[in-house]
Amino acid sequence: MSPFTDNPAESLAALGEVELISRIRDWLGAANPPAPAGIGDDCAVLPDSPVPNLVTVDPVVYGRHFDDATPPALAGAKLIKRNLSDIAAMGGQPTSGVLALAAGSNVSLVWLEAFIRGLAGTCIEFSTTIVGGDIAELPAGQFVGTLTLLGHAERKLLRTGTQLGDRILVTGALGGSIASKHLDFTPRIAEGLWLAGRSEVTAMMDLTDGLAKDLPAMLTAGTCAMLETASIPIAPAAEDLATHSGKPAAEHAFCDGEDYELLFMVKGDANLDALLADWIETFTTPLCCIGKIDTVKQASQNRRLINTASGELLYPDGGYQHLKRHD
Amino acid sequence: MSPFTDNPAESLAALGEVELISRIRDWLGAANPPAPAGIGDDCAVLPDSPVPNLVTVDPVVYGRHFDDATPPALAGAKLIKRNLSDIAAMGGQPTSGVLALAAGSNVSLVWLEAFIRGLAGTCIEFSTTIVGGDIAELPAGQFVGTLTLLGHAERKLLRTGTQLGDRILVTGALGGSIASKHLDFTPRIAEGLWLAGRSEVTAMMDLTDGLAKDLPAMLTAGTCAMLETASIPIAPAAEDLATHSGKPAAEHAFCDGEDYELLFMVKGDANLDALLADWIETFTTPLCCIGKIDTVKQASQNRRLINTASGELLYPDGGYQHLKRHD
Repeated sequence: MSPFTDNPAESLAALGEVELISRIRDWLGAANPPAPAGIGDDCAVLPDSPVPNLVTVDPVVYGRHFDDATPPALAGAKLIKRNLSDIAAMGGQPTSGVLALAAGSNVSLVWLEAFIRGLAGTCIEFSTTIVGGDIAELPAGQFVGTLTLLGHAERKLLRTGTQLGDRILVTGALGGSIASKHLDFTPRIAEGLWLAGRSEVTAMMDLTDGLAKDLPAMLTAGTCAMLETASIPIAPAAEDLATHSGKPAAEHAFCDGEDYELLFMVKGDANLDALLADWIETFTTPLCCIGKIDTVKQASQNRRLINTASGELLYPDGGYQHLKRHD
Repeated sequence: MSPFTDNPAESLAALGEVELISRIRDWLGAANPPAPAGIGDDCAVLPDSPVPNLVTVDPVVYGRHFDDATPPALAGAKLIKRNLSDIAAMGGQPTSGVLALAAGSNVSLVWLEAFIRGLAGTCIEFSTTIVGGDIAELPAGQFVGTLTLLGHAERKLLRTGTQLGDRILVTGALGGSIASKHLDFTPRIAEGLWLAGRSEVTAMMDLTDGLAKDLPAMLTAGTCAMLETASIPIAPAAEDLATHSGKPAAEHAFCDGEDYELLFMVKGDANLDALLADWIETFTTPLCCIGKIDTVKQASQNRRLINTASGELLYPDGGYQHLKRHD
């Protein structure tokens, strides 16, 4: 469904800001707490507990993160899920967020209602509220929704905790997200909280730009990631895509991005079998050990991914890079 | 200066996301604290103290809040100042923020550096840091910067604390902001903190859409604002504008918006002269009492502004309304 309408009576232009905010509050329903915490003052007032110690921000942009073919409820849900995945990647739980909409006045009210209701449903599912926001006008035909999400973590799992000898683990399966998963994924909040409670886990991030780009961000100077390529969990969607993309399914798994899975490290001397056994008792989400952190043998391997079997560098050009032109 | 360039080598397209984030970190300088608090992980980690209990979000949109004629440093400063003004309006002090940029790949690096440095300078002036953010791509020729700012208030001054008999006060002078003040104003953080410490102050907001639209938001059902129109502080810029706009200067003062002044209420039985005397000892910012909160005499006055001298409604159509078309 297109976000835009040619009929002004069915668009944002029909309402003005005051009435639009009132509608958005209705559409958010239980995801918008009553004042003073909720929408309506100069700032939103945060509850006293839990104290937020994490903050993240991610947008959805029309034409980039979703398009006319995207059901609006999924586009709205994606906005909060992108942020939830970041909170999960720190081992945190989400608390509350603020929503900034920048939209052409020809955005359709029917579309926006479905977008907001989709976002609100996911908020409620993950015990999160929208406590405030802003509406600004963009040129006709444009829409950017930006959500800032606060969270709380007892133990914050950073990307930079990686140690020499750590095993590298990943949840779920990778690649081919564009087929549907980029709009229809489950943020790994429960898994992230559980992993933050395990002292043998040293570092964590969520996979958004692909393993090939994201894993190097966890490596310190002088180390590399030795990967068992046969252990990489390749999503069925990546296999499907490979049948007509001309690329191997493994390349999709390494480079597609938007996996929204957790990538994390477990101490080399920890009992990995015990962790895997406990995991299986708790979650149905797949979990794979894909390699380990080693010292580099030569400078070219610094902070790179290496195929353990062949010694070759894996996808040194990385995954998806925003903005840059390759022409 | 235009934010955009036709030369790809001088644009965001030349860099890619990783290098761009590195540059932004450099440009932010001391406004970006070191990790783990700063840019670089899935979430930003907030310091333990002060605990944030306020959050606000405001954008600047190219073509709406600034244009090619705007010095980029002022556009960047405006982004953080809009948010600082919201924190001031709650009686809070700012703590830290996250910056989401959505930009066409033809945004000029020279322009963006000046924008970020302008923002960073204002952050440092107000003891605020940028702890994280996001970069997303928009169509060429577009730019939206969205800043979410956290703050802390010992006593939170809401808009809704207004009581019958309260005196209505306003800082600074109103109207004609478009001439320069909308880009060059001082957020009333110090004044807001001071007012939150005065128990006779019952409610507060910042004037962004004009007194005519903003003041009714502080009125409860059955009350109205009786205004001494001769006491309204009219800015020289509003007088200038009136010489060629065809509107009275007072209409500019009531309706122009973007004043970023504090509008607040003082209990009717409080010693107003004592408050004004203490104010003058502390601040050079002008402060005016412009009226008081009364009960309505007829239904048409409900939550309206009334001219005390004539009994007439003042500007019942209010100030600036975003989005709505008046055609």
